[in-house]
Amino acid sequence: MTTKNSKLLLDKHIAKIPNFPKKGITFYDISPILESPRLLKQTIDALCEEATVFKPDLICGIDARGFLFATPLAYNLNCGVIMIRKSNKLPGKVLVQSYELEYGSSELSIQTERQLSGKRILVIDDLIATGGSLNAAQALIKKASGIICGALCIIELTELKGREKLMCPIVSLQTYRF
Amino acid sequence: MTTKNSKLLLDKHIAKIPNFPKKGITFYDISPILESPRLLKQTIDALCEEATVFKPDLICGIDARGFLFATPLAYNLNCGVIMIRKSNKLPGKVLVQSYELEYGSSELSIQTERQLSGKRILVIDDLIATGGSLNAAQALIKKASGIICGALCIIELTELKGREKLMCPIVSLQTYRF
Repeated sequence: MTTKNSKLLLDKHIAKIPNFPKKGITFYDISPILESPRLLKQTIDALCEEATVFKPDLICGIDARGFLFATPLAYNLNCGVIMIRKSNKLPGKVLVQSYELEYGSSELSIQTERQLSGKRILVIDDLIATGGSLNAAQALIKKASGIICGALCIIELTELKGREKLMCPIVSLQTYRF
Repeated sequence: MTTKNSKLLLDKHIAKIPNFPKKGITFYDISPILESPRLLKQTIDALCEEATVFKPDLICGIDARGFLFATPLAYNLNCGVIMIRKSNKLPGKVLVQSYELEYGSSELSIQTERQLSGKRILVIDDLIATGGSLNAAQALIKKASGIICGALCIIELTELKGREKLMCPIVSLQTYRF
């Protein structure tokens, strides 16, 4: 479980905000990375480099910060993007999957109209903690007959063992214990 | 009020879903555009072409679908990205602005820590309807001493006159009356 692209030295550009959104939780905030043209470009390039290996057909971005990276990846890898969104956000018929958060529970959904069947799907989010949302994304992709080929994150909280929930390889650019 | 890049012919790839999220509202859904590698690339390229004219330093993406386009624009134009998010989503100190929706009301926020002062800011969202969220974004940018230089949308509902609320030029790729 090694940190890839450690040359990026993202750590000092990730803000650590204690007790957000709940007491006892530290929020790892990528806003300083996004704000810097250089860091944003380097981060996207690093993600693209990792993503290429998985040869995806489609990138699934998880609502909402996953959206930030799904499209530049798709643009560079010549893939389409599918939104995995929180409840009641997607119009039309949807598949729904509930999951546990570090704090509480939530639901993710995907439109039944999207064509995932037999496609290689790469999932992207900004952070993997307990792996709840990525695991729900994996379940949705399976329900839609897609093939999850990998997951990418900027940040991984390794001690929460989120990657153990997934059946595919995960790459993260920066790891923290909690 | 002309449709730019009409050669893209996005209309047939925008799903129209009646009575979502509320009865009487038609939801214009860009999911089919996102799903197609070719259409996604053409849409991002068209947005980049329009964005260049504004010479932005920063791209503000509006939560959540604005995020999909903020980063590929920023990547191609060598800008940073700042998230404008719904209430209680951003950690740390935030500026907050409430606004009226086509259906109900909401709030947007921006982190006080971000450096907008004196910068040229381009705002992006997928759709402009009554202009409530773009107007709130404009107010937040002003509070943070940024200079809003333009706004970009994929879709504009012209009869709702959202552009009249903004003090900057707006470019949309596809217009509808309602």
